[in-house]
Amino acid sequence: MTKYSVVGKSLPRTDDPLRATGRALFASDYSIPGMLFGKILRSHYPHAKILNIDSEKAERLSGVKKIITGKDTIGVKYGFVGLFPQTFDEFALAIDKVRYIGDEVAAVAATSEDIAEEALDLIEVEYEELPAVFDPIEAMKPGAPKIHDHAQNNISFMLEREFGNVDKAFREADYVREDEFVTQPVDHVPLELHAALANYDDSGKLTLWSTTQSPYYLHKQLELTLGLKESQIRVIKPYLGGGFGDRVDMSSYDFCAALLSIKTGKPVKIMGTREEEFSFSRRRHPMRVYLKSGAKRDGTISVSHFRIISDTGAYNSTGVLAINIPLAPVTTTYNIPNLKYEGFQVYSNNQVSGAMRGHSVPQVHFAIDSQLDLIAEELGIDPVEIRLKNARKERETTVLGTKIASCGLTRCLNRSREIMDWGNKWGNLKEGKGMGIGTMSFASGASFNFFGSTSSFSAATVRLLDDGTATLLTGASDIGQGSDGTLAQIAAEELGVHLNDIRVVSADTELTPVDYGSYSSRVTMFAGNAVKNAAADAKNQLLEVVAKKLEANIDDLEARDRKIYVKGTPEKGMSFTDAILATQTVNKGMPVIGKGFYDPPPFNFVTSEGDISPAFSFGSYFAEVEVDRETGIIEVKCITAAHDCGKAINPIRVEGQLEGSVQMGLGYALSEHSVTVKGMVLNPSFLDYKFPTALDMPKVTSVIVEEYDPAGPFGAKESGEGTTIPVAPAIVNAIYNATGLRMKELPVTPDKILKAMKGKKSKRRC
Amino acid sequence: MTKYSVVGKSLPRTDDPLRATGRALFASDYSIPGMLFGKILRSHYPHAKILNIDSEKAERLSGVKKIITGKDTIGVKYGFVGLFPQTFDEFALAIDKVRYIGDEVAAVAATSEDIAEEALDLIEVEYEELPAVFDPIEAMKPGAPKIHDHAQNNISFMLEREFGNVDKAFREADYVREDEFVTQPVDHVPLELHAALANYDDSGKLTLWSTTQSPYYLHKQLELTLGLKESQIRVIKPYLGGGFGDRVDMSSYDFCAALLSIKTGKPVKIMGTREEEFSFSRRRHPMRVYLKSGAKRDGTISVSHFRIISDTGAYNSTGVLAINIPLAPVTTTYNIPNLKYEGFQVYSNNQVSGAMRGHSVPQVHFAIDSQLDLIAEELGIDPVEIRLKNARKERETTVLGTKIASCGLTRCLNRSREIMDWGNKWGNLKEGKGMGIGTMSFASGASFNFFGSTSSFSAATVRLLDDGTATLLTGASDIGQGSDGTLAQIAAEELGVHLNDIRVVSADTELTPVDYGSYSSRVTMFAGNAVKNAAADAKNQLLEVVAKKLEANIDDLEARDRKIYVKGTPEKGMSFTDAILATQTVNKGMPVIGKGFYDPPPFNFVTSEGDISPAFSFGSYFAEVEVDRETGIIEVKCITAAHDCGKAINPIRVEGQLEGSVQMGLGYALSEHSVTVKGMVLNPSFLDYKFPTALDMPKVTSVIVEEYDPAGPFGAKESGEGTTIPVAPAIVNAIYNATGLRMKELPVTPDKILKAMKGKKSKRRC
Repeated sequence: MTKYSVVGKSLPRTDDPLRATGRALFASDYSIPGMLFGKILRSHYPHAKILNIDSEKAERLSGVKKIITGKDTIGVKYGFVGLFPQTFDEFALAIDKVRYIGDEVAAVAATSEDIAEEALDLIEVEYEELPAVFDPIEAMKPGAPKIHDHAQNNISFMLEREFGNVDKAFREADYVREDEFVTQPVDHVPLELHAALANYDDSGKLTLWSTTQSPYYLHKQLELTLGLKESQIRVIKPYLGGGFGDRVDMSSYDFCAALLSIKTGKPVKIMGTREEEFSFSRRRHPMRVYLKSGAKRDGTISVSHFRIISDTGAYNSTGVLAINIPLAPVTTTYNIPNLKYEGFQVYSNNQVSGAMRGHSVPQVHFAIDSQLDLIAEELGIDPVEIRLKNARKERETTVLGTKIASCGLTRCLNRSREIMDWGNKWGNLKEGKGMGIGTMSFASGASFNFFGSTSSFSAATVRLLDDGTATLLTGASDIGQGSDGTLAQIAAEELGVHLNDIRVVSADTELTPVDYGSYSSRVTMFAGNAVKNAAADAKNQLLEVVAKKLEANIDDLEARDRKIYVKGTPEKGMSFTDAILATQTVNKGMPVIGKGFYDPPPFNFVTSEGDISPAFSFGSYFAEVEVDRETGIIEVKCITAAHDCGKAINPIRVEGQLEGSVQMGLGYALSEHSVTVKGMVLNPSFLDYKFPTALDMPKVTSVIVEEYDPAGPFGAKESGEGTTIPVAPAIVNAIYNATGLRMKELPVTPDKILKAMKGKKSKRRC
Repeated sequence: MTKYSVVGKSLPRTDDPLRATGRALFASDYSIPGMLFGKILRSHYPHAKILNIDSEKAERLSGVKKIITGKDTIGVKYGFVGLFPQTFDEFALAIDKVRYIGDEVAAVAATSEDIAEEALDLIEVEYEELPAVFDPIEAMKPGAPKIHDHAQNNISFMLEREFGNVDKAFREADYVREDEFVTQPVDHVPLELHAALANYDDSGKLTLWSTTQSPYYLHKQLELTLGLKESQIRVIKPYLGGGFGDRVDMSSYDFCAALLSIKTGKPVKIMGTREEEFSFSRRRHPMRVYLKSGAKRDGTISVSHFRIISDTGAYNSTGVLAINIPLAPVTTTYNIPNLKYEGFQVYSNNQVSGAMRGHSVPQVHFAIDSQLDLIAEELGIDPVEIRLKNARKERETTVLGTKIASCGLTRCLNRSREIMDWGNKWGNLKEGKGMGIGTMSFASGASFNFFGSTSSFSAATVRLLDDGTATLLTGASDIGQGSDGTLAQIAAEELGVHLNDIRVVSADTELTPVDYGSYSSRVTMFAGNAVKNAAADAKNQLLEVVAKKLEANIDDLEARDRKIYVKGTPEKGMSFTDAILATQTVNKGMPVIGKGFYDPPPFNFVTSEGDISPAFSFGSYFAEVEVDRETGIIEVKCITAAHDCGKAINPIRVEGQLEGSVQMGLGYALSEHSVTVKGMVLNPSFLDYKFPTALDMPKVTSVIVEEYDPAGPFGAKESGEGTTIPVAPAIVNAIYNATGLRMKELPVTPDKILKAMKGKKSKRRC
């Protein structure tokens, strides 16, 4: 008999058919009798004072029920990370001034979307334009336009850390090199657009159906910005058509729908457009990564100095995290004993940046893996070997003090090398063809408590039903990645029942215990452990009774396949259903409800000491590309994506993440770019924003490397975000291998290839 | 300081404004994209074989999506009380034959209500009419048409019980008399019509929004009739516009919407009409009550023999209960040591009878109180005195073995007598004016488990939030009586917080622990205790931590007014919010969730032994009427309604129940009658069905008598159903006092008064 009966199997989600047939209800599918429709008026200026807003004409338009501006709010600033008050820098509706094209100025509720749209044009806003700045380097210079009063040199958040003896290490290095890498802003491109339906009722309670990834976080932000109590709000996340980080932050749709509902006493629905999605939602931080590293002759990297300049746009949003998070991979993927890390999150008058799958690690690992290849070449070392030499090993402790209990990086590299036939092909490919490697490590959930809350990071309850099934209440938020299914598998395994015996109720802040949501690849680890503990608590209530009935020791009992029995003696036992009924009978009908929670090991956000995450995933992707020297067109032929996700709770879902990540990384590497000029996004449509489709996909070989991690539920680690990190460096390194062109700026578009070719002669490597 | 800070106060419900402003959503307010509309085809014959159903023409009508008949069902019979299999006698859609005008034959789902309605006319049903019977006396005679194969003499359920020595007691009685009383069928007249919205989705799960009083019971009935598992169904009761018993049973709207949704794969909504409500919903059982009693000269009733013949109509529905339930008041209100009880629930081809507020006790107590007055008159005893002499006292045990822990009947009688100035007025009123008394006792929840389920009768969970508030999950079903508010008050009192600190999530079988619903006046006692226990469990988790922090004994702590402190030393304590945060901190973030349940003392349904209910309410109503001898019109001038509800959790809500009960009892006594000829209801409209309005209401003096009962939460007992019982006897006794006409058949309409006056000379009493 295998160890697990549900975990480790590629089982479909119970609700897959609903998504396939269109029966699943998304936020925009909900409606309430008497509902109004809202639209948001945004600034056309990148930086301007608001002198006056005259909404009289708009108010007179028949069908307009309410117009709100900053004056209608309680004037409280919000942000994402409560630990640093200065990063609470954004008004839900602009009050004093606007700081980017898209800054929310007013919102309208009307009896139809058309009327609301028409009303926007009738609102007269008097602005005084201010000088603006769009480049973070410029923004940090003396005399640059000041975007926020509190921010010296427009620096929103700064992090400096040093480990080991960096100066000494550089002095002692055999080889030192410096490079600078530049990444572009990109959009998340979720298939579902933003939507919010708010219903503030006469009892003083606000219910919000929202396209959020983090109902509890949104709940907290609504409390703050609306001045409501926790118990006055209910946030519901219906089915969600993709969340890649943007939706972890409160959206203007959420806030404006809520405030309009409060002011009108009617339900109000606001649905975003694709143009708004591209132009005004949170984008991935564009970063400049300066990286200086020193190495020994044998390829051992002894020291690295990172200097990261990140463009947060007009507000900080998740900017604090974007600067902190790379500390994890920078210290984790490779074992570099001496490290200097400087991160600058800088304001500009651009679209606001925010969390996006991998949250600033794709940017930084693009630098790491590109530079590693450059060092390897200079030292004459095989790119795989230099990685194997420096690769993190299990049972090591990072310079941050983070204990690495499991690490499959070496296995990933070896497996990918083998599958790609690296040994035979490396150096022997035809002109225009090349191979490259990208690697990664990623946190399985961040051990940060952004709220300073006393509640656990994740909690769950499991209620057993008379028919032998269970209802799981979890705050975790399925954003399309299938976490409801994964959590159901964990509950089923722990209880010893089948997957379809578990009903999941999730992501409703009124009904489900606190869980901070879907970000930092935390759900399987954090919510998974909470669910496992809740299921174990429920099961133990049964085991106590069953042990007495069977005259056995609790420890000798096993729950599996809808039965509870004495281990090794399946005939001495009873059905799971009978166990529930017996337990209820013994307990006079007390329902069997299990509780569980999970709190990670402590991490000090201010000093960066401790376990930044309970466990880390590792991975290496090998790409093979072909570059057309005439057109500059790059074709990615195949990618072998090896990923150590610990125990794969559901292998097909891990493969789905790997394939999806390749798609996203492919766009990031080669085509996607929110082209922004003077703060305006010039390509806010699917026509102009080049997003890889199924036809653009290379052959993907997904390799799941299972390094059991003791912190994870059944040994599982993350496999949702980190998986996107190695794609771009693998492709860019392969381009170099194919063309001799070292591209340090993303995306690597055909025109850049052609331009670079003109600049210098091809210099093939190996 | 008073004993309680929340309980005992007339506090408004948090959601009162929603009801007042129309924002509360009722079942018919819900809609789902792509929803179809359903209509039900019913039999026009009272008794007929179905030879064939041809729905071809109807199916061809554009917009018709599905037509279902009995052949589309799994052909399982259902009923209300699972203990007696023969009372599972009804197909959800008729298969073999129809048994009353209204029996469900087919249902249609179409894209609009109009099309569904039109399709009904196109369904061709070929019947073979059968002889029918409409009077239960006739139905029991040999040779009567056989309505169900299993039922000998059309007797659906029979109950015979004898306590003491009845024959001896009759032989030894100083005075014996026999009477027969007849009551009519009446409708519940809820303001909200039946509605059901079913959504069976591709994952195999059925969600049903229903106008049910008992989501869990409906859940069970859907499992049975649709062949689904418990975990495949979710029943949600939204706001409900009145439930008086009819909605405790599965309706055809529920079943047909569910099956049509299963068959079409679309959401289906069915809304009933007022005509359907009057003609085809469950009505109150019409009963003939034969009552023979023996008394001593001093008015002590020594023996009673009840023989009850009840017309259940075409199916048993709650008929088993309707025959069992009167055992409680018959043995409880008065202390009659020798008792014979014979109950016959008889099939006819009439509309089906079911539970209705007081569930067969108004019928039986009409007999008891009428006959008591007759005996008092014969023996020359004051009607109050004869009641006081025989009245139940606390700490007595009934012949059933039920222990009566609290009884305020004597106090009720004395208080009403005083308020009505009975001493001065009795016997001294002018011709045409009269006074009369009705009394009652009623179960605070029936200790019957209809399912044979191992789960408790009621369970609840309480989750504490960071802002010092609590979310209560209870399966209890607020049907307009305000039980959500009552349960919130109980939770608030137990936790020591304010009423508006409690959010209630109720009556959703997926989210809330099992609770059997709103019937038998059980909610305050059963769900109330479960909620109190759950709140206590949550509070105790706080007290453990607070005790350590304060270095105090847990037992010395008190929770009140949002604080937890050492009793008598309020300054030594902390806020409730701080206690939650401290507890979460100590418990590493584990959410504070309390669990509670309630199971009543055991009652054997088959032998009738034990505590039929954990506690009993008592009451006496005194009515004063004036009868116009020219027109026969009876005007009820005033009613003093004294009711022992134990501790009144919310006095104004108890008064609301008393006033509402007077309205309902008034209609029952004087005007309401579902006039039925050959199985057809002739007055299915508000125009023809005479329902008392606000203008018809007498002056009501509500008197709350609080006899603390140890079984109740904070000493509370029922005050929802029993309150309707004494109205009719009080009025009818007053009519006799006014006119000398002893009316033994309800309703007492003017034409009956006039007819009776012709029949005999007025004989005024006293």
